[in-house]
Amino acid sequence: MPLDTPPFARDIIAATRHCTQQQQQIQFSSSTNKHSSLGRARRRTPSTVIKSEQMKNKNEGLEYEEEDDMLKGEEAFKTTKVPPWRKQITLRSLVTSFVLSIVFNFIVCKLNLTTGVIPSLNVAAGLLGFAVLKSYTALLSKFGLLKQPFTRQENTVIQTCVVASSGIAFSGGTASYILGMSPYIAAQGGAAQNTPINTKTISLGWMFGFLFAVSFVGLFSIVPLRKMMILKYKLTYPSGTATALLINSFHTPKGAKLAKKQVSLLFKSFCGSFLFAFFQWFFATADECGFSSFPTFGLQAYKQKFYFDFSSTYVGVGMICPHIINISLLIGSIISWGILWPLIEQKKGIWYSTDLPASSLHGLQGYKVFVAIAMILGDGIYHCVSMLTQTGCSLVAQFTKKKVSYSPQGRDSDTENEDNDDKIRKDYFLKDQIPMWVAGTGYVVLAVVSIISVSHIFPQLKWYHILVAYLIAPVLAFCNAYGCGLTDWSLASNYGKIAILIFSGWVGLDKGGVIAGLASCGVMMSIVSTASDLMQDFKTGYLTLASPRSMFFSQVIGTAMGCFATPLVFWFFYKAYTIGDPDGSYPAPFGQVYRGISLLGVEGFSSLPKNCLKLAIIFFFLAILINIIHDLLARYETKYKIHRFIPNAMSMAIPFYLGGYFAIDMCIGSLILYLWERKNKQKAKDFGPALASGLICGESLWGIPAAILALAGVRAPICMKFLSAPVNGKVQAFLDGAR
Amino acid sequence: MPLDTPPFARDIIAATRHCTQQQQQIQFSSSTNKHSSLGRARRRTPSTVIKSEQMKNKNEGLEYEEEDDMLKGEEAFKTTKVPPWRKQITLRSLVTSFVLSIVFNFIVCKLNLTTGVIPSLNVAAGLLGFAVLKSYTALLSKFGLLKQPFTRQENTVIQTCVVASSGIAFSGGTASYILGMSPYIAAQGGAAQNTPINTKTISLGWMFGFLFAVSFVGLFSIVPLRKMMILKYKLTYPSGTATALLINSFHTPKGAKLAKKQVSLLFKSFCGSFLFAFFQWFFATADECGFSSFPTFGLQAYKQKFYFDFSSTYVGVGMICPHIINISLLIGSIISWGILWPLIEQKKGIWYSTDLPASSLHGLQGYKVFVAIAMILGDGIYHCVSMLTQTGCSLVAQFTKKKVSYSPQGRDSDTENEDNDDKIRKDYFLKDQIPMWVAGTGYVVLAVVSIISVSHIFPQLKWYHILVAYLIAPVLAFCNAYGCGLTDWSLASNYGKIAILIFSGWVGLDKGGVIAGLASCGVMMSIVSTASDLMQDFKTGYLTLASPRSMFFSQVIGTAMGCFATPLVFWFFYKAYTIGDPDGSYPAPFGQVYRGISLLGVEGFSSLPKNCLKLAIIFFFLAILINIIHDLLARYETKYKIHRFIPNAMSMAIPFYLGGYFAIDMCIGSLILYLWERKNKQKAKDFGPALASGLICGESLWGIPAAILALAGVRAPICMKFLSAPVNGKVQAFLDGAR
Repeated sequence: MPLDTPPFARDIIAATRHCTQQQQQIQFSSSTNKHSSLGRARRRTPSTVIKSEQMKNKNEGLEYEEEDDMLKGEEAFKTTKVPPWRKQITLRSLVTSFVLSIVFNFIVCKLNLTTGVIPSLNVAAGLLGFAVLKSYTALLSKFGLLKQPFTRQENTVIQTCVVASSGIAFSGGTASYILGMSPYIAAQGGAAQNTPINTKTISLGWMFGFLFAVSFVGLFSIVPLRKMMILKYKLTYPSGTATALLINSFHTPKGAKLAKKQVSLLFKSFCGSFLFAFFQWFFATADECGFSSFPTFGLQAYKQKFYFDFSSTYVGVGMICPHIINISLLIGSIISWGILWPLIEQKKGIWYSTDLPASSLHGLQGYKVFVAIAMILGDGIYHCVSMLTQTGCSLVAQFTKKKVSYSPQGRDSDTENEDNDDKIRKDYFLKDQIPMWVAGTGYVVLAVVSIISVSHIFPQLKWYHILVAYLIAPVLAFCNAYGCGLTDWSLASNYGKIAILIFSGWVGLDKGGVIAGLASCGVMMSIVSTASDLMQDFKTGYLTLASPRSMFFSQVIGTAMGCFATPLVFWFFYKAYTIGDPDGSYPAPFGQVYRGISLLGVEGFSSLPKNCLKLAIIFFFLAILINIIHDLLARYETKYKIHRFIPNAMSMAIPFYLGGYFAIDMCIGSLILYLWERKNKQKAKDFGPALASGLICGESLWGIPAAILALAGVRAPICMKFLSAPVNGKVQAFLDGAR
Repeated sequence: MPLDTPPFARDIIAATRHCTQQQQQIQFSSSTNKHSSLGRARRRTPSTVIKSEQMKNKNEGLEYEEEDDMLKGEEAFKTTKVPPWRKQITLRSLVTSFVLSIVFNFIVCKLNLTTGVIPSLNVAAGLLGFAVLKSYTALLSKFGLLKQPFTRQENTVIQTCVVASSGIAFSGGTASYILGMSPYIAAQGGAAQNTPINTKTISLGWMFGFLFAVSFVGLFSIVPLRKMMILKYKLTYPSGTATALLINSFHTPKGAKLAKKQVSLLFKSFCGSFLFAFFQWFFATADECGFSSFPTFGLQAYKQKFYFDFSSTYVGVGMICPHIINISLLIGSIISWGILWPLIEQKKGIWYSTDLPASSLHGLQGYKVFVAIAMILGDGIYHCVSMLTQTGCSLVAQFTKKKVSYSPQGRDSDTENEDNDDKIRKDYFLKDQIPMWVAGTGYVVLAVVSIISVSHIFPQLKWYHILVAYLIAPVLAFCNAYGCGLTDWSLASNYGKIAILIFSGWVGLDKGGVIAGLASCGVMMSIVSTASDLMQDFKTGYLTLASPRSMFFSQVIGTAMGCFATPLVFWFFYKAYTIGDPDGSYPAPFGQVYRGISLLGVEGFSSLPKNCLKLAIIFFFLAILINIIHDLLARYETKYKIHRFIPNAMSMAIPFYLGGYFAIDMCIGSLILYLWERKNKQKAKDFGPALASGLICGESLWGIPAAILALAGVRAPICMKFLSAPVNGKVQAFLDGAR
């Protein structure tokens, strides 16, 4: 099976990552709630952004400290020695990271292949990493064998490593741009682009080569700017900050106690979710069997993909994502599958031919894919423009105000404690340097290697195309890292999508523009995404006194682990199941969507079925309009905060392709969390993420034995089938006759 | 459809009622736990029984009072006036009773028709009665319209009325002796007894007549003995005592608060259970569809009736019954369906003919029914003998010790408070008298009416048969009321079963002995069961200062309600579904079992299939042996209390006929309660019965709309079907071909 390269799912990661951050922050102090719409903070006037972000950052720290007598910032760790950076990266932490990397790769891969909605697994990674190493060291110290105590720096290394590795599972695009190259996905489109030059059979070999070639470049692209972003601009990086606070809390007595309880709950919900998935397996011997095709709201609704599919994974995902994301998904599925598609289906034979296969892009499927693409692109382009504008303005403001306000002495509102903490952190942050020339040389050397190998893997993409990509990339990487620092919103997949449009159009259909576009997406997305991840980690390291060097190296090691694990895990699923079948268990929606974007790039709008372009344009502008309304409300209507109730355009678009079943799962997750919060707000905040993580991990991990069973040809013994009353009558008569 | 009269399920009610009492007592004070094996207390040496029971009774009161500062026995009610008996029976209490009567009749009827296992619904009745009247009076008093406050005496009246009414739903035998008369059940046995004279088509008319004729006699049979039993012998009546304590607690501030929370939980679990049952309905368009045929443990286990059928009712029942009852059910189902029946099935063609219908008593079904009967009879006869011996010894001891120890002044261990309470209670108990001549005349007049009408309804039963029954009955009624006072164990259904054997043999097959036996069971059971219920209520009334007269009248009214509602509710189910089909949704096992006992009476053992008699004798003595072991252990092995782990023979026998599915439900209920108790013992004790009652009531009440839908011919739209993988392949091919 051939395959090549489209990009586009990071928004959701971004959106959901952003969400999770809120959760994590909430975990520390309920009063940070008022800041929880961080993702939208970038819409304030640029001149005030940085200051307010700094204050926010400080407030979080302060409130957290006030709440817990045991913690007074760095004072709590006064007696704890910080090991040198080489001792921060220990063998035990690397082994733990490796195991968790594999686990999280499975989880992310499974999520990628089912809906593409991926929540942040930071909390789960943090909790599990802590649990594994803590029990290991506790065991050793019981037998008097412990030589080196478990430090928070070590914990940070694990966290960084695991997050970097599972980041590759996403930015490696196995379920998006790489899958989009495969002939199977191509066959669902028209014949014009289903040519050998526009498809690439997926194989393990070139996936490894490609990932190793493109994934490390990004690390070097903005390393030199770390001091500016962390110390000078004091960017928030909410994810990084929250992770750091989580890790710091784990290593103080009270925090450790809570962590232990959280780990225990995570473990319980993990087991429950795993066993339930195991139980479900027995009843799904074939397609349309089992719990995943349970017509919860009746057969008619099931046909329109409205049903609860008993997926504890997505219930957990729903608990982690903010309510508005889940509601947006539901609204999107009602608009599309409830209203739009049934209406279009009535035009069958008029708008599109009746004798097309159901999966053809020239039939109803085409409307689903391209309307979704239009909405996603509209949302993405709006965010790119908005982010670039904001970054620019913020930088201008930074430069003009710099001489007046920047110096530690100039900050009048800081307490002595804060200053002390800052001083200690700054000292450690500046202790281990990464020289400028290393970064520069690294980038150039890796870029050259990448240009040679990528153009070799994808002959459709010439060396000059890739060179251009590597010239633009550092600028975009900086913008993304800066924007992410402000808003926690990484737009890597949006930049990737724009890259598809540019490069596929540039190369053209005859010369393999589809593959070229998808491959360039991989190149661009890797750099942009890794850069912002690295900067997040530097922030985490800054707050946990981990050395920038150990952060850098653990990121490198994590990336290597990811490049190694991602293709293997994907391969495992790819061999065991049919990936990319819109009606199968693994529809992998983004494979089709990314290829669709590439088709737009090479063919323009000529490939669309009738009226599809009109609809697509409407939804493109609708997405932009929704964003404008949201931002205007957020800026000018501060009394009732109506902007909180404006749905998210990106989230609305995903069910256009997939249907509403996972939106229903996620809304149930939201509902559970809501009821829990009503009953006991603090408990829900403390334990909600742990419960959700367990639900996600348990069912996802059942995917491993399930895939092994599928590979071994073992089929479940029972089919739980749902038949309408008349059909059941016929079947019963047939069975009675057969007996 | 014709129908006449067999008796036999009261053991289970007895066993489970007894269980529930433990639950209720636990609700008041965890330290009464050590007394919770009350049901077995009768096995002590007779001379010590009464005294220890008295002390137990006192202890319970004391401990309860110590726990709650607000309650010091009657002192807590010092300022509350006790209304005269006519004002205790108010219109509002009667209306509430009537509504709850209907509700509980539905519940009991549904339980009767599915498995015959009926838990005590006293707690539910108490809570709901309190909730209804309390909210009504609270509403009135808000608008200043409340003229008469809600008293605990009124609450006792409701409780008595509802329990009396739902008692008829059981002792009326619609699912046991009356159902056993129907030609449908008769057809499942041999042709010899399936003659017009040995069947009676069920109709509403004669059911009303029969119930009204026989149900009131019992009330008059032992009224004169109430002072002796309550004041002189100071019998415990654990159910009555617990109910009284519950009602007393509701009417003190702290108790009312707890009751409110319990009512709230009951309501929630009620709604949840109702909605879940409603949801299940949609998926069960035909037999073998829906959640009730979910092969939870695989298709092979399903064939042997091992599966979880998602019945929240029986999960609730399992939460109310003690763990050992649930385990006994499970053991019984493993022995029978797991081992015995598969072995016997291998003898098909050798032990019994292969061309019999599955429901024939001459085939495998015969083994199921008669082995179950043997075990039930063995258990019942053991208990009757044991109880008669014990009652006799206890009375002898009472008479010989009487002159020495009986007088309030003679009791050295009583505190002043206790004495005071006793004095107040005694005063109120003696205030309203029921003259001896009223009781005597009542009994004679009603017996004559009954003799005339019953012999008219069942010509098979001559007037002298019934006269003999009415001559023996008061003695048995006294024994049962006395035994119940000691042990909370009403053996009414056992006396009924013995009556079947005696009268069916006496009348003989040719003269309609089957019907005669079943009808005489109804006569006997009604008297015996009503008498013990009434004495329980006198005890409740004694402890809540309700007048004996109001107790008597509310019992009469409740009985009338029961006689009115029971046939109607049964009729509703009878018309809507096929009742008594062993493989249907309403197998009503006791219909077949009671008829089977009657067949044994008329035909001896000639009707049994090969080797069935041997097996039956083995299990008959096994049941007796189990009881002897239990009692010996309870008496001589007091250190580890191993007797707590001896299974209950009666409970083991029920799944012999039905299979293990409801045992699994009930064990899940047990498991839930066990885990809850481990997590929070007090909470589980306080709220377990409320949760369980809600689960039971909710699903049972869905039976009403479900039956209406069935009567109206509305069928569910979906069939959730479970097919093995190969069968599914065939069905899928068939469906694909049909499309």
